[in-house]
Amino acid sequence: MTKLIEYEHSSEEVRAIYDDIRATRKTDEINNFWKAIANHPPTLQRTWQAVKEVMTSPGEIDPLMRELIYIAVSVTNGCEYCIASHTAAAYSKGMSDQMFGELMAIAATANMTNRLANGYRIPVDERFKT
Amino acid sequence: MTKLIEYEHSSEEVRAIYDDIRATRKTDEINNFWKAIANHPPTLQRTWQAVKEVMTSPGEIDPLMRELIYIAVSVTNGCEYCIASHTAAAYSKGMSDQMFGELMAIAATANMTNRLANGYRIPVDERFKT
Amino acid sequence: MTKLIEYEHSSEEVRAIYDDIRATRKTDEINNFWKAIANHPPTLQRTWQAVKEVMTSPGEIDPLMRELIYIAVSVTNGCEYCIASHTAAAYSKGMSDQMFGELMAIAATANMTNRLANGYRIPVDERFKT
Amino acid sequence: MTKLIEYEHSSEEVRAIYDDIRATRKTDEINNFWKAIANHPPTLQRTWQAVKEVMTSPGEIDPLMRELIYIAVSVTNGCEYCIASHTAAAYSKGMSDQMFGELMAIAATANMTNRLANGYRIPVDERFKT
Amino acid sequence: MTKLIEYEHSSEEVRAIYDDIRATRKTDEINNFWKAIANHPPTLQRTWQAVKEVMTSPGEIDPLMRELIYIAVSVTNGCEYCIASHTAAAYSKGMSDQMFGELMAIAATANMTNRLANGYRIPVDERFKT
Amino acid sequence: MTKLIEYEHSSEEVRAIYDDIRATRKTDEINNFWKAIANHPPTLQRTWQAVKEVMTSPGEIDPLMRELIYIAVSVTNGCEYCIASHTAAAYSKGMSDQMFGELMAIAATANMTNRLANGYRIPVDERFKT
Repeated sequence: MTKLIEYEHSSEEVRAIYDDIRATRKTDEINNFWKAIANHPPTLQRTWQAVKEVMTSPGEIDPLMRELIYIAVSVTNGCEYCIASHTAAAYSKGMSDQMFGELMAIAATANMTNRLANGYRIPVDERFKT
Repeated sequence: MTKLIEYEHSSEEVRAIYDDIRATRKTDEINNFWKAIANHPPTLQRTWQAVKEVMTSPGEIDPLMRELIYIAVSVTNGCEYCIASHTAAAYSKGMSDQMFGELMAIAATANMTNRLANGYRIPVDERFKT
Repeated sequence: MTKLIEYEHSSEEVRAIYDDIRATRKTDEINNFWKAIANHPPTLQRTWQAVKEVMTSPGEIDPLMRELIYIAVSVTNGCEYCIASHTAAAYSKGMSDQMFGELMAIAATANMTNRLANGYRIPVDERFKT
Repeated sequence: MTKLIEYEHSSEEVRAIYDDIRATRKTDEINNFWKAIANHPPTLQRTWQAVKEVMTSPGEIDPLMRELIYIAVSVTNGCEYCIASHTAAAYSKGMSDQMFGELMAIAATANMTNRLANGYRIPVDERFKT
Repeated sequence: MTKLIEYEHSSEEVRAIYDDIRATRKTDEINNFWKAIANHPPTLQRTWQAVKEVMTSPGEIDPLMRELIYIAVSVTNGCEYCIASHTAAAYSKGMSDQMFGELMAIAATANMTNRLANGYRIPVDERFKT
Repeated sequence: MTKLIEYEHSSEEVRAIYDDIRATRKTDEINNFWKAIANHPPTLQRTWQAVKEVMTSPGEIDPLMRELIYIAVSVTNGCEYCIASHTAAAYSKGMSDQMFGELMAIAATANMTNRLANGYRIPVDERFKT
């Protein structure tokens, strides 16, 4: 198990990122994910930058829908940590139980049809190629 | 390669489903996906029923967002056919190029963090367990 | 693209394995798979040994069912080459179109429920743990 | 963790499905899987219908072999819940320890050759394309 | 298929990144990968930054070994484009045919044992937990 | 959970392999992985043979780098057991914390770009095809 780097014991470099995480997320809590990857500061820095930009910068997909997409990927990959943390994030951004149910149904159905497309070796329709 | 069952040569059972696909989608075109799985009518019947319910029945996630979730799963699984067909569907439902770019960014970032969570063997935070 | 090592141009070491493949499979044809991995003879040797033992040695699962299991894995991984070659092998061992349809239905359904189990983070029932 | 919907506290709609599960499986036990997805009744309904049809309706692949295929997919996806529950189901349908060993060997070998086919970028043999 | 953004038709923002790619890689060629993701400049910018840092910044894993690791991941995911481009990159950095063969053998074996570990549901040894 | 076959209770056939594992690894400890797959001696025999050859025979990729490649695959597949055991093995062969950080960064970045390549359906550059 990876050692978790607590705020109190972090280097200046790591602490600056932790401060940005706290400010961006408006909470003092720092998830274990960040405390773990802080063992390699360039990875912490780059990953936080990416997640911050992708999940919080202005855009055409609203923040809740971004979380749903994140969960769909994590469910497909079977990443327990990511499913748990992004499901919590989605609920905090307004996901209802009904939406979670619909999300699971879509993700499950896509995984099913993905395999049918593989197995039947279906040629892509000409009109989808352009 | 799987033989594609054309409308003209389909059994009564298959044709009834093709007719429902046409009516639901408001187009005479039937995607190769359905023509391929029509080789096993119970799979055609069950899969169409699932896709129809999950993608078109009333719900809290809007139809375009459902397509984005479908694409995110298909990209994660590397299903070429499904990426092509659902990207076309998403554009027809109003996806902009900007939204597609954001979607790719979210899916790619989730795939990245999923692996960091695996590799660092990060314990799920207590507050995410409930 | 990998250079394919043809029988005529193969080293003595590779040729001995090709001869065993031909004898075991009762055909002169050697699939591109073997011709490709023959670029690294230890991999050819080890892989052929494994496939031969696992797919043809006496056992409780009959040869056709072994092919179905192989296809189910390949469909799940989206391996185009393996789906094509093992589907051909399964047909040559007696798979009917109906069986292929059932196989696809099982593989697709398993992929669907696998994701539901992930997403709902379902605790394993006590009676399944022993 | 998802709340499990117990039989006693289920809605009429969910209870009808639970009753069908009990009758079909000839046991009062309902797996956590169903109790979890019962949080979204349409998913419970659709998933049970699919699993029931695919795993228990008459067909050319016998019930035990269907379980083996299910396990092979679940092992490939790394779905802990599904491996545990379907391994139990397979044992109850007559799987021997020897068969389980053979199944693991086939699934492992297929996963190995799938990656060799990817890495060597092997062109599909002409005779497998038809 | 995604439109590829050629250097000549790129915006100033994209061109600056293309120039950095050319300078870093010491070639005028720009891979289709960058030309495709240039459709969403923030993704181009962030992805190039990550790849540049991770693959070319000073570190303890030498540049050729980084390519081998990249290929192993891409082979596991079945990403045809990434296998092709990083195999070319690895050869240009000194990979021998022998090394490629060893790499495939390691990646294939790991994929095999990963599934055995899943299927046998093996408890992690106490001494690996710390 | 699979029964672990302890050295003391193993058959002669299994014990001979355990002895080779101990001799090759220069330790009396036998990992749970081997104790689990020993339930099917042919799988134990074949898997140990493959792992021994691939990970310890002379070659152009050094033993530590082989472990890093193994970890990258296991992280991509999300195999908890394999990540734990091969991370321990890598540390025992000289992996530094810095190298582990770099490895995670490479594996995560490759998983990210693999999905971008899928989603943008990028045609392989002509010069990568030969």
